[in-house]
Amino acid sequence: MRALVYQGPGKKALETRPTPEIAAPTDAIVKIAKTTICGTDLHILRGDVSSCTPGRILGHEGVGVVEKVGNAVTAFRPGDRVIVSCISSCGKCDYCRKGMYSHCVNGGWILGNTIDGTQAEFVRTPFADTSLYHIPVGTDEEALVMLSDILPTGFECGVLNGKVQPGSTVAIVGSGPVGLAALLTSQFYTPAEIIMVDFDDNRLETALRFGATATINNSDGKAVEQIMKMTSGRGVDTAIEAVGISASFITCQNIVAPGGIIANIGVHGVKADLHLEKLWDRNIAITTRLVDTVTTPMLLKTVQSRKIDPKRLITHRFTFDKILDAYETFEQAAKTNALKVVIAI
Amino acid sequence: MRALVYQGPGKKALETRPTPEIAAPTDAIVKIAKTTICGTDLHILRGDVSSCTPGRILGHEGVGVVEKVGNAVTAFRPGDRVIVSCISSCGKCDYCRKGMYSHCVNGGWILGNTIDGTQAEFVRTPFADTSLYHIPVGTDEEALVMLSDILPTGFECGVLNGKVQPGSTVAIVGSGPVGLAALLTSQFYTPAEIIMVDFDDNRLETALRFGATATINNSDGKAVEQIMKMTSGRGVDTAIEAVGISASFITCQNIVAPGGIIANIGVHGVKADLHLEKLWDRNIAITTRLVDTVTTPMLLKTVQSRKIDPKRLITHRFTFDKILDAYETFEQAAKTNALKVVIAI
Amino acid sequence: MRALVYQGPGKKALETRPTPEIAAPTDAIVKIAKTTICGTDLHILRGDVSSCTPGRILGHEGVGVVEKVGNAVTAFRPGDRVIVSCISSCGKCDYCRKGMYSHCVNGGWILGNTIDGTQAEFVRTPFADTSLYHIPVGTDEEALVMLSDILPTGFECGVLNGKVQPGSTVAIVGSGPVGLAALLTSQFYTPAEIIMVDFDDNRLETALRFGATATINNSDGKAVEQIMKMTSGRGVDTAIEAVGISASFITCQNIVAPGGIIANIGVHGVKADLHLEKLWDRNIAITTRLVDTVTTPMLLKTVQSRKIDPKRLITHRFTFDKILDAYETFEQAAKTNALKVVIAI
Amino acid sequence: MRALVYQGPGKKALETRPTPEIAAPTDAIVKIAKTTICGTDLHILRGDVSSCTPGRILGHEGVGVVEKVGNAVTAFRPGDRVIVSCISSCGKCDYCRKGMYSHCVNGGWILGNTIDGTQAEFVRTPFADTSLYHIPVGTDEEALVMLSDILPTGFECGVLNGKVQPGSTVAIVGSGPVGLAALLTSQFYTPAEIIMVDFDDNRLETALRFGATATINNSDGKAVEQIMKMTSGRGVDTAIEAVGISASFITCQNIVAPGGIIANIGVHGVKADLHLEKLWDRNIAITTRLVDTVTTPMLLKTVQSRKIDPKRLITHRFTFDKILDAYETFEQAAKTNALKVVIAI
Repeated sequence: MRALVYQGPGKKALETRPTPEIAAPTDAIVKIAKTTICGTDLHILRGDVSSCTPGRILGHEGVGVVEKVGNAVTAFRPGDRVIVSCISSCGKCDYCRKGMYSHCVNGGWILGNTIDGTQAEFVRTPFADTSLYHIPVGTDEEALVMLSDILPTGFECGVLNGKVQPGSTVAIVGSGPVGLAALLTSQFYTPAEIIMVDFDDNRLETALRFGATATINNSDGKAVEQIMKMTSGRGVDTAIEAVGISASFITCQNIVAPGGIIANIGVHGVKADLHLEKLWDRNIAITTRLVDTVTTPMLLKTVQSRKIDPKRLITHRFTFDKILDAYETFEQAAKTNALKVVIAI
Repeated sequence: MRALVYQGPGKKALETRPTPEIAAPTDAIVKIAKTTICGTDLHILRGDVSSCTPGRILGHEGVGVVEKVGNAVTAFRPGDRVIVSCISSCGKCDYCRKGMYSHCVNGGWILGNTIDGTQAEFVRTPFADTSLYHIPVGTDEEALVMLSDILPTGFECGVLNGKVQPGSTVAIVGSGPVGLAALLTSQFYTPAEIIMVDFDDNRLETALRFGATATINNSDGKAVEQIMKMTSGRGVDTAIEAVGISASFITCQNIVAPGGIIANIGVHGVKADLHLEKLWDRNIAITTRLVDTVTTPMLLKTVQSRKIDPKRLITHRFTFDKILDAYETFEQAAKTNALKVVIAI
Repeated sequence: MRALVYQGPGKKALETRPTPEIAAPTDAIVKIAKTTICGTDLHILRGDVSSCTPGRILGHEGVGVVEKVGNAVTAFRPGDRVIVSCISSCGKCDYCRKGMYSHCVNGGWILGNTIDGTQAEFVRTPFADTSLYHIPVGTDEEALVMLSDILPTGFECGVLNGKVQPGSTVAIVGSGPVGLAALLTSQFYTPAEIIMVDFDDNRLETALRFGATATINNSDGKAVEQIMKMTSGRGVDTAIEAVGISASFITCQNIVAPGGIIANIGVHGVKADLHLEKLWDRNIAITTRLVDTVTTPMLLKTVQSRKIDPKRLITHRFTFDKILDAYETFEQAAKTNALKVVIAI
Repeated sequence: MRALVYQGPGKKALETRPTPEIAAPTDAIVKIAKTTICGTDLHILRGDVSSCTPGRILGHEGVGVVEKVGNAVTAFRPGDRVIVSCISSCGKCDYCRKGMYSHCVNGGWILGNTIDGTQAEFVRTPFADTSLYHIPVGTDEEALVMLSDILPTGFECGVLNGKVQPGSTVAIVGSGPVGLAALLTSQFYTPAEIIMVDFDDNRLETALRFGATATINNSDGKAVEQIMKMTSGRGVDTAIEAVGISASFITCQNIVAPGGIIANIGVHGVKADLHLEKLWDRNIAITTRLVDTVTTPMLLKTVQSRKIDPKRLITHRFTFDKILDAYETFEQAAKTNALKVVIAI
């Protein structure tokens, strides 16, 4: 089969690889129909993810059709249309039993990282019963590619951890795909204000279309000042960090109201300053989270009932033979205005 | 009346001051029977608390007898024996209505800070109905001095924010009065392990007597290593920071298990490093809090029903004319083994 | 002043009464601009509410302008435009401190019940600071009459107690004003399905306009059967009882899914059967609640930010001299299709 | 092998039956070391449990040694010492993923009900990885027999659902084994008062030894009156129903304070009156639950750390050949003072 393979920092190529086989009774083989590219894939290609070694097939998102199942798989059969979750959950370990699938001691984020991933014609998915999700008949499959990772990430790490509530004030620092996923899903809870902060006017315009009540281009470094003014000096109830750099995390510290929450989504490469001398008595919480995908069934219901249209995150479409173009488009988002790019396989 | 007055950095003295009068219809005047000294009083004396200006009567803890009440006070009458809460709560503002009395826009921590405090024969307490608590008949008043501040601080900021649970593993970094208050009150929730960390063997021995299941003297800097070993490499569910310095906050970061909580109690004077590059995907929460004293009624019930004896925190007793000795004893805790010192007025 | 007075079972009349005066330092006198009629007012007129004695001015809802305040009132001044909450909260008692204002030991539901109410030119409101709410400039006052009682009742007793969640399935049994208030506010949480049940097609049509995803006229007694079919035999996550009779409460028992909640809003006059022989092992919860109005600030924000338009509940408008017509219109809802009627004073 | 077999209403006998074999890849065969008898076993013998048909091996509790495992079992190996949970959880279905194992669509309470149970030399346990628990080295196995059912039942259905809290007031109506299990585990949360109600003085004496702060023999029907007096007319925060009859459920309704919870544990055979005419405005919750055994790991930690000694529930011990005597002793509890009887196999 054809597969996109990581060949070491800065290098990737479409290669021909053997089709994967069932290796454990809980495995399934899924024929991928559509996949997408994550910011994390770019991190791998930069050599930032040491657990992912050259030779690895990339990708941890996608929808497809079950091809084969191991003898302990009971919830899926060949022919079933499925979402592949970015997190593999054994369903048995202490973390899985607590709904913290991200820290599954037998799985977690392994697809396209420590085992071969979904940017290929076929993928072997471990713990199929607890890591795949049935696609309801009549649902737009392309939209569901967003349920592998980006939508649950924005929702769980940003919105749920951030305890967004009716009437509350939310700021999302970072209007890229995951910030926009948080924007879309925060509206499940009807906050009064959602302020988006970014440096890119195009992304901020998208944010407005997606439901932001205000946008701030922080090129002048005045986002904190503006947000404090907009909130009469009180700050925001929920500050969602959706970039992964120290500066945006500090912005969140400067705008969170007493009693508020800073919900970190961003992938951070270095430490950040925490201004405890200002925050120790502010009754705030800071949360971190790797997506658990524990809300996938809930999100599926909101998609099925048309409460949200995740397809709005998709800006570009490619065929599999053009996947290198897809990567380039995604990497050059500032130029291409790409959010999520979908690759049909 | 006699009162202990802050005279600027490094200076304090017993002075004669006019007895306070009712200034607002919601005020009460309380004749103080017993008061105590808080670490925050030492901060003021070092000049660290800019809101507290020279001339201020110190102290925000104490029990006593109501002398007079304003015409809008309905829950207290002259002669009532009361606990004076360190937090003055108007009961009306948004924060008070949410139970976040610490951020009361009309009160908060003002006693012995922006208005005269309790280290005096009399104190004027604003918002008496919502800032004083009746002392139940038959309860040991001295024990209840601990309910003004130290016990709710350890409980709310450490134990409640830290979500201590039956069977869970807790580490408390700092075995001073507030760490020990967290130790005593964490046992309300029956954790399996409570590991106390300090540099002072005497305090750690006290911790053992107070219910710690293990103690670590971190003089050799090996607390993290030892705790990870004790928890089979998993870390602790709740790490309580009860010192207020960067090093102990970093210890907490190094020992918190995935899904765990770092509950900060300490008063920090400078920023700290937050190792988001290690923590962004660990599903943890970090909380900060100025005590709200919202649990005072609950704590009173636990004292009345003899589930906890806060008197164990009291090591020394003084008469009011010896209050300067009381301060010295409290400041020299490493030598005197002082925890809380009680001054009878 | 003119006031609508309860004169004993079946009797009411517009009378001339003395204008109320400040009686306690925490009182305010409010000049009523608009009021409305509650189902509870009809209960009083039927003689069902023994605490309300003849001679009482009726009404516990309304907006108006502060005329005078007692000397302990700090948050309101003459001229302030305000919402009068149906619940008077002293802000001091144990229940108020826990946010359970409905059970305030000094207040609770007293307006138009044990003290004179709002269907008058003026009303004395006890505990003004914690029982009135400022009307934000630019907000439609008429819409805010719905915030005195009906909207927080539907929201707190139905939606919050019922833990409505994104993607969940809700059934509301009873499509009268309070059921519709629950319908409007349940959408704050983006459930996938909201099924409304009633006997009146007109009310069900209104429900569809207000966001119901399905409606069932239960005249044929087949609502349970239909709901079980619509939910593939699983039942609903949240069943809201919004009628107050045994039959509708039993319907809720028959449709609640394992793990679900029955949130009772209805005012019940008699006991009901609870089928514990079917429910003991179903992991359900049944909740009851008298509205606390603790969410009034949150609801105000949702109105201000145009997330909800409570005015949609208003079907008829009257001048004060026509208030008897207003009552008749409200009582004859089956004929008049009345939901809430607003009386301008 | 020998096994105790249900032979239809009123009839049971020790029979010789074939040793069970692995039937699915997720099965284990466990050699039972110790088992016990549950009130539910008596219900079966009375013919009350229609799902359990004659020929069924009884029993759903026990500890033992893994004999064989299916090829998909990864967490257990032959020779492992294990607790057999009364609930079989597939770990995959929606209910299991939500921690509601009791409603597992592939399992639930099936042992000794719809499949053969644990009162035998061997038992086949489906979904072994998610339905067995490792016995920690050095733990008293006999005590752990109480973790199959009785202790999690009292804890989950009574204490957790009842939200017992530090300083709160709890009443437990029914001082049999499950009421006493609730009594033992409620102390994890340090309530101020635990009032036990029963008709049997012996059981009430046991309750006092187990930590009750007060006991009431309700033979005179004055329990409600006494409890209201003990709580100054306020009632209790948590009322736990641990009998399963209408009268005790009504007692709970009469003693629950505003804002309180009635947590039902009892197995009810008939409907009960619910006095909604008194309770509709009392802000209470009523909960029901079949034990999920989701807290087994937590309870194990409390046993390991000696915070609780479940062995206190064991009053009698038998060898397997005397199991009919064990049943008689358990059935005649009023005479024998039996709580839990342990049978060594």
